[in-house]
Amino acid sequence: MNRLRTLLIALSLTLICGTSSFAGRIKLDHVEPMFWWANMTNPKLQVMIHGENISDCRVAIDYPGVTIERVIKTDNPNYLFVNLLIDKSAKAGSFDILFTDKGKTKATYQYELKQRRAGSADRKGFDSSDVVYLTMPDRFSNGNTDNDTVKGMKDICDRENPNARHGGDIQGIINHLDYLQELGITALWNTPLMEDNMDKVSYHTYAISDFYKIDARYGTNDDYARLSAEAKKRGIKLIIDIVTNHSASAHWWMKDLPSKDWVHTFPEFTNSNHRKSTTNDPYVSKVDYKLNFDGWFDTSMPDLNQKNNLLLTYLIQNTIWWIEFADLGGVRVDTYPYNDKDAMAVYSGAIMSEYPNFNIVGETWLSTAAEISYWQEDALNHDGYNSNLPCVMDFSLLEAMVKAFDEKENWNTGLIRLYNSLAFDYFYPHPENIFTFMENHDTDRMMTVLNGDMRKYKMLMSFLLTTRGIPQLYYGGEILMEGRKSDGDGVMRVDFPGGWEGDARNAFTKEGRTDRENEAFDFLKKLLNYRKDNPVLHTGKLKHFVPQDETYVYFRWNDEKTIMVIMNNDDEEAKTVDRKRFDEVMSGFTSAKNVMTGEKLNDISTIEVPAKSVMILELN
Amino acid sequence: MNRLRTLLIALSLTLICGTSSFAGRIKLDHVEPMFWWANMTNPKLQVMIHGENISDCRVAIDYPGVTIERVIKTDNPNYLFVNLLIDKSAKAGSFDILFTDKGKTKATYQYELKQRRAGSADRKGFDSSDVVYLTMPDRFSNGNTDNDTVKGMKDICDRENPNARHGGDIQGIINHLDYLQELGITALWNTPLMEDNMDKVSYHTYAISDFYKIDARYGTNDDYARLSAEAKKRGIKLIIDIVTNHSASAHWWMKDLPSKDWVHTFPEFTNSNHRKSTTNDPYVSKVDYKLNFDGWFDTSMPDLNQKNNLLLTYLIQNTIWWIEFADLGGVRVDTYPYNDKDAMAVYSGAIMSEYPNFNIVGETWLSTAAEISYWQEDALNHDGYNSNLPCVMDFSLLEAMVKAFDEKENWNTGLIRLYNSLAFDYFYPHPENIFTFMENHDTDRMMTVLNGDMRKYKMLMSFLLTTRGIPQLYYGGEILMEGRKSDGDGVMRVDFPGGWEGDARNAFTKEGRTDRENEAFDFLKKLLNYRKDNPVLHTGKLKHFVPQDETYVYFRWNDEKTIMVIMNNDDEEAKTVDRKRFDEVMSGFTSAKNVMTGEKLNDISTIEVPAKSVMILELN
Repeated sequence: MNRLRTLLIALSLTLICGTSSFAGRIKLDHVEPMFWWANMTNPKLQVMIHGENISDCRVAIDYPGVTIERVIKTDNPNYLFVNLLIDKSAKAGSFDILFTDKGKTKATYQYELKQRRAGSADRKGFDSSDVVYLTMPDRFSNGNTDNDTVKGMKDICDRENPNARHGGDIQGIINHLDYLQELGITALWNTPLMEDNMDKVSYHTYAISDFYKIDARYGTNDDYARLSAEAKKRGIKLIIDIVTNHSASAHWWMKDLPSKDWVHTFPEFTNSNHRKSTTNDPYVSKVDYKLNFDGWFDTSMPDLNQKNNLLLTYLIQNTIWWIEFADLGGVRVDTYPYNDKDAMAVYSGAIMSEYPNFNIVGETWLSTAAEISYWQEDALNHDGYNSNLPCVMDFSLLEAMVKAFDEKENWNTGLIRLYNSLAFDYFYPHPENIFTFMENHDTDRMMTVLNGDMRKYKMLMSFLLTTRGIPQLYYGGEILMEGRKSDGDGVMRVDFPGGWEGDARNAFTKEGRTDRENEAFDFLKKLLNYRKDNPVLHTGKLKHFVPQDETYVYFRWNDEKTIMVIMNNDDEEAKTVDRKRFDEVMSGFTSAKNVMTGEKLNDISTIEVPAKSVMILELN
Repeated sequence: MNRLRTLLIALSLTLICGTSSFAGRIKLDHVEPMFWWANMTNPKLQVMIHGENISDCRVAIDYPGVTIERVIKTDNPNYLFVNLLIDKSAKAGSFDILFTDKGKTKATYQYELKQRRAGSADRKGFDSSDVVYLTMPDRFSNGNTDNDTVKGMKDICDRENPNARHGGDIQGIINHLDYLQELGITALWNTPLMEDNMDKVSYHTYAISDFYKIDARYGTNDDYARLSAEAKKRGIKLIIDIVTNHSASAHWWMKDLPSKDWVHTFPEFTNSNHRKSTTNDPYVSKVDYKLNFDGWFDTSMPDLNQKNNLLLTYLIQNTIWWIEFADLGGVRVDTYPYNDKDAMAVYSGAIMSEYPNFNIVGETWLSTAAEISYWQEDALNHDGYNSNLPCVMDFSLLEAMVKAFDEKENWNTGLIRLYNSLAFDYFYPHPENIFTFMENHDTDRMMTVLNGDMRKYKMLMSFLLTTRGIPQLYYGGEILMEGRKSDGDGVMRVDFPGGWEGDARNAFTKEGRTDRENEAFDFLKKLLNYRKDNPVLHTGKLKHFVPQDETYVYFRWNDEKTIMVIMNNDDEEAKTVDRKRFDEVMSGFTSAKNVMTGEKLNDISTIEVPAKSVMILELN
């Protein structure tokens, strides 16, 4: 925050006092990270210095416990990378980094080592005890109308335009943390909040123009830290969305690249071929392989070259900086398999080594467990690759879920899709550490997929919240918001009603919701809060039975509790389940309680489940 | 063959001579294997003896180098399993196995150790230099009308009935070996020829009632050995179809099971659930797991319990017996993943240890490389399982092939299906040792799938015969035979025209084929014979390029030759390929020869390929 303030004050003072000639001083355009912390596990820190011809300078520091290990020049004379060793003995405090040329001081930067929060290194990341809520901040709630349009930033606020900024911001999220807590949410992921200063369509904020600065239209860095603190008070972990694959073409460094190989360049704009199968294909051509990894994600998104170690260190430190600065509970990394995979193994490894109890989820948009699992830490991979990435996203289960409830049972259709998708969990070294979701900002809204059928909605939600994994919801899902990707991204990213003052209604309140929305909200709230209080649904064992006659039965259990879930996917008929088939789990249980209705079942020799519904039972 | 003959003669002599009281003698109903070979790698042999109360007897053998290691009784007194150790010093010859009770001779069996063929242990199995032709013998050709209907066997010959026997036999196959040789075939797989004495629908012969006997309607054991010898003369390896998962309910042992656990029994007929995903599912229920492996494949097919070591040894020996007896070049094992998997690892391991250069292909009917590869020897499996099975079947590529040529290009449709299927080869430890096929006796006929389009046919054949793997054709494919599985199995298994005397035409001859059939036949013959002579298509390296604009380009190369294959899948337009994209392979080549037309291309800077066609080029 205000990262150049200190320096500017120092320079101003120098100018005013006139103690040395100002002529020949070098303006430091960027110093990143602009501060750091004492007592990190990794004693190394690499500070990037950007200033005209700075590479002519010698660098000196005089501070107990801090030594300059190495100063690295690139092919661009305007950059220096200063590698520091920060000993455990180094105390929090400030020191000057002195830049001299032929004995003359050319620049000074007052560097600060901050005190870490107690327990920072041991911070716990999100896990299967959590339910994650994803917002797109521009579209969630406008808590501060002063920052809707910001001077000097071209993409202005226009709620009529689905591709323009709508004014949602960090204060808007803070204002609704109570709402999320009431719903039963325990982790919050927002699409990126760093500055995206592209001229248009910047609302999604995945084209980041400054990795160390919150976009002014969302608030300040301090606002983001405040969001985290307020969330934490309510038992909600904050998960940051990090983009390592690309920056914005509007990023400041695109005007003066730190080195020629900082981004992948081509004679003309070259898109990624998006063929992720090239990653492991034994027959892949060099050109296709290169295009997948090095092609640009979009014209606005130059592809970063993570093979460049200076850049890789920059990215690692940037993530750690945000974790420390904003006291985070997790990281989500965008377009994970588009990055250089070896570099990303270093990236994830470095973060997990700094925070051993933390969690990082990569966006692993692949179709099958066999492919997705390649990217999970400790996977048994043909090439020995270990990503060091603890958590992946279950796009396979997503594909199953969007179809299963809308189909009649056949050999490969209906509920068997859920069963078969989970059956492949043997590919995952850590099947409990997987994001499960039925929609996000890049997919069709589930209610559209389900043709607005409330029964299917409840079935899907019940499944998502009782099967294995870390469920992730998408803002508005709780009030049945609809949208189809083919109608334009904006359609899946409409404003949450009531997020803006003057909205026709406020769906954050019971009064502002329709009866139907309240039915969905109340159902979800009840289930989320039940899940929250019942570790059996977080870490309990899972056993499931091949779906038969439109019914799918599975169990979660631990030493304290056994949960039985029965789904009836039939549109018309109630189905009766005979306990005999499930004896290997049900043996010894004689009665049950319906979790959602509270009803007691004194005879569970057979259990009838109404058409198109789920029954969640606690067995006794 | 005539396995009881020796014994019967011995018994008759005893009776005639009257030298001992015949009262109290035990009739030996079955002795299997009825003979064996000296000088096998594995010195162990287990002989199964079946006769009323035989387990009361002591067993004795007096032959240099042969000792009885152990005699095993089961819960059925009518069986004995005699474990022999056959030392390297044991010479080929005969000896008596003597069965006595309280000093009295109860039975004698003259056991023969035959001399092995020279080089038998080193025999070479089929590999990627081969092209395999699959026949269903009952439907291929009737070479001997005397055995069409056999006395005592209920399922009689009736060519009007698609589910009855049609009279095809071993002699019919022998009669057309020249035809196969001319076509360019180098390996021959016939669906099972062992006795299937079920009352009806026995023509497929997968319900085997005697594992040691060729079905009399096909011929004799000696006929089968003759088929092998005749094939070998023409450079054709014979592959036997082995069923280990089940026997027929008409199998003789079903009337007097060797032990209670010989087959899996249930209170009432219980079908396999066919859910192969249960094999590795971490959440699988015990009941579903058991049903997959132990349920019956069909009412006529009792599921064998390969966990029973006596049975497992029986199956291993039976396969080895056929390999030695008929001088075979390969084994195909039916319904591989339905068998007990640990037992099958022992099975395949035992055969490969007896014949280190041999090959066994398992019917691994699963959808993806990730699943199929589990069953290939040396796969990197989550549970450490090693099947010891060298070769698997590429059902994934089949699914891709039946769709690719009939679709317009889209993100996941058209030729990208072929590309993506092969891209998963990283799951296979031995991607060269995979059966590739576009149809077999259990699938739709390809020409039906391709709507009878000759251009698609040629594209598909060209792909199959130039990509990696061991191509397998299905009888009649060369003359465009059609048939859809949903119209009944018989429809994909119609009689080969001309296979029966008096048929309206003989499609085994040029004159008997229509022009269209000759076009297909000649195309295939040319390609097969080219493939046969060009090791680059057997073991050459493969590199392919992401399909673009309806074209898919790939290369096979070795030290001698480089082949370029260009497919144009567009229905209407010729496509021009620019060599620039392929420089990493084409660099240094300046001209090419079209393999199918012989045409010389002196300028290969761009290459035009007509609509819906494939060009196969030798680069120079």
